[in-house]
Amino acid sequence: MSPPRGPLSQLRRGHEELVLGLLRKHGPLSRGELGKLCRLSRTTLYDILAELVATGAVVPAGQQDDGPRGRGRPAETLALNPGAGQAIGIDFARRALHVAAVNLAHEIVGAASEPHDADLPWERRVDLAERLVGRLGGGDLRLGALSAIGAGVVGPVSDLDSSTGEAGDPLPHRAQVLLRERFGVPVLLDNNTRLAALGEAIWGAATGARDVLYLRLSHSVNGGLVIDGSLHRGAYGLSGEFGHIVVDPGGRPCSCGGAGCLETVASVRAVLDAYRERGGHADDVRGLAEAAGKSEPAALALLAEVGADIGAVLAALCNAVGPGVIVIGGELAETGAALLEPIRRTLDARIMPISRRRVSLRAATLGEAAGALGGIALVLHESPLLSRYPAGPDLAAGVPPLVAGPPRRHDDFVKENS
Amino acid sequence: MSPPRGPLSQLRRGHEELVLGLLRKHGPLSRGELGKLCRLSRTTLYDILAELVATGAVVPAGQQDDGPRGRGRPAETLALNPGAGQAIGIDFARRALHVAAVNLAHEIVGAASEPHDADLPWERRVDLAERLVGRLGGGDLRLGALSAIGAGVVGPVSDLDSSTGEAGDPLPHRAQVLLRERFGVPVLLDNNTRLAALGEAIWGAATGARDVLYLRLSHSVNGGLVIDGSLHRGAYGLSGEFGHIVVDPGGRPCSCGGAGCLETVASVRAVLDAYRERGGHADDVRGLAEAAGKSEPAALALLAEVGADIGAVLAALCNAVGPGVIVIGGELAETGAALLEPIRRTLDARIMPISRRRVSLRAATLGEAAGALGGIALVLHESPLLSRYPAGPDLAAGVPPLVAGPPRRHDDFVKENS
Repeated sequence: MSPPRGPLSQLRRGHEELVLGLLRKHGPLSRGELGKLCRLSRTTLYDILAELVATGAVVPAGQQDDGPRGRGRPAETLALNPGAGQAIGIDFARRALHVAAVNLAHEIVGAASEPHDADLPWERRVDLAERLVGRLGGGDLRLGALSAIGAGVVGPVSDLDSSTGEAGDPLPHRAQVLLRERFGVPVLLDNNTRLAALGEAIWGAATGARDVLYLRLSHSVNGGLVIDGSLHRGAYGLSGEFGHIVVDPGGRPCSCGGAGCLETVASVRAVLDAYRERGGHADDVRGLAEAAGKSEPAALALLAEVGADIGAVLAALCNAVGPGVIVIGGELAETGAALLEPIRRTLDARIMPISRRRVSLRAATLGEAAGALGGIALVLHESPLLSRYPAGPDLAAGVPPLVAGPPRRHDDFVKENS
Repeated sequence: MSPPRGPLSQLRRGHEELVLGLLRKHGPLSRGELGKLCRLSRTTLYDILAELVATGAVVPAGQQDDGPRGRGRPAETLALNPGAGQAIGIDFARRALHVAAVNLAHEIVGAASEPHDADLPWERRVDLAERLVGRLGGGDLRLGALSAIGAGVVGPVSDLDSSTGEAGDPLPHRAQVLLRERFGVPVLLDNNTRLAALGEAIWGAATGARDVLYLRLSHSVNGGLVIDGSLHRGAYGLSGEFGHIVVDPGGRPCSCGGAGCLETVASVRAVLDAYRERGGHADDVRGLAEAAGKSEPAALALLAEVGADIGAVLAALCNAVGPGVIVIGGELAETGAALLEPIRRTLDARIMPISRRRVSLRAATLGEAAGALGGIALVLHESPLLSRYPAGPDLAAGVPPLVAGPPRRHDDFVKENS
């Protein structure tokens, strides 16, 4: 949590945003021109400009040469620093919103989450995103210097910047348009679980691994693959749909239109429903985790069954794809060893014996921020994992290149999420 | 088939090999030095050198400058063309050997196959490879200009040039050592089915596709993946083991040490055994294919069941990896639509509905030569599919770079295999 900020500090921040907005709109301006446009006092303006130059948000941009001028040197202009830029990552999960941001130095300045109803309209989700972003960073975050937003959405995203929505699934595009209107910057869109996989592979449980399988067990069940050191999208942006691998052909109908998919047995809702059917009492995953922690037989038996289904799917995928690291994330992973150990047992039993000791099964470490952090990574586009990944057309056209290294984590952020 | 070759032609070829061998051993030599070393008549030597220069196997390599010389210009030297090189691909399948070769222009000069017992010792397999290679190319092939061999072997290959064999699986290394001794060139080793996938993705059913899943249904069941325009190896060279994905946890023991793997129901032996158990009569896949062609009920029912198992595995992999093209190869694919249609039905039923029309299911087109052709591609290392694939240490150190484009297919080769 950042300390409460007084009205003077807020006023100053408003002035900074004003100046940055003018530079974004008009391009390089002299101090005199900025003064006329922003109507701030000379002292206030020069003070703010000094601070913006000191933090690297604004840089000298040469001398003015348009038209005849009076005596003396031509005025020096200032411009937004093309080599710096802030980035925001947003994960529009099914029932919660997660945001994270990096400052001009590409340090992660904070992450925030808030649950919401599954049917919350996109306008309200974007409102919520704006509110959460506003709370981040304790003053480090200047939205005027924002370069782009990386947003993750549920479901397949065929193109990073699709100009039309998928038939029957126009929502991701809607989010993109709304965010662009609200923040005035390009918005890169991708599948939110793929972004979480990216986050875990860059900064989380699989840092440094070249072949990673990430499985997120949440309200939906999905995943992402890092293959040979690159985040994988699949031929039509359709990959990592591990939740829709059939584990029981005669099983329940699935949201995807199929039946008996892994998601029908391993999503948060499916597991909690099954627990209640067996006489257990848990309002949420935390309750189930507590029951399992007390060795409550129904909870342990259920998680063992679910873990076996998950392990079978993972074994098949390991034989096919050969990851070195498997990361299990999502809310359900909070049940800990009661779920991870059954997964491990079935994985070991079903994987090719020669591969058994070659794959490392790990719990995710970035928590619910993983997807938003992956969105930032998508915008920065500096990780080797993205060297072959397409950059969105918007981004290629309109965003200044980011020159700094990958985000460094603030210590408090690490503590929060470890 | 190449025309029979008379003794004079064979003699000439022997002389060429002799000259090429001397240039390989000594590096650049003048015509005079070559004459002393090879002991051929001046006329014969000059005739052979003219032919070798004309075909590009040998190139002028500057003037001699070592030590004082008599009057006149220093003698011009000749050397092996570092920009050209022949390559041989060998597929050591379980019960057959397949070879293919490209000439100096990187045209495929031919392919040949011969079945053998599964327990044929490696020495005899390498003998057989040498014999088959000797028959290729109708004179285009000069082993003296051979740059390297790409060899495919059954089972996982962890490193392209492992200096020690895997525990319990030293055979691939044995093949590598024997081939190197016999042909005197570096030998790149890889999984033979992965090489077949590479062949089909470069020159076969999936030419131009960036995401390809190749499944080979033969005496073993395996496959290979082209992911995002790159041939995929997996974290330990272990990938594409589709045959060891479990389709029936209570099923028969598998060669991998597991049970109920796809290979236990979809290998050639498994299918023929099952057909006989149901009262069918077929000595081989051809017999089964004929029965299916005559709509023999037991044959159709069996292939429908096998196809359903295959389709279920493919659907799971499609959801996870998102290929644009699936290629079905191997002997069992010769049963045609009787197998492919049930595969397609289950694939369509089990794949995520949104992906259904986005994946193209195709029969392989390169026939049994696919693996050997993939071996050649591995040596040439020029396909974009291999741009991120490791080159073996031997190859990097000892083999001149190959500058020509990918092999062009001779028309007769295309006819033979289409």
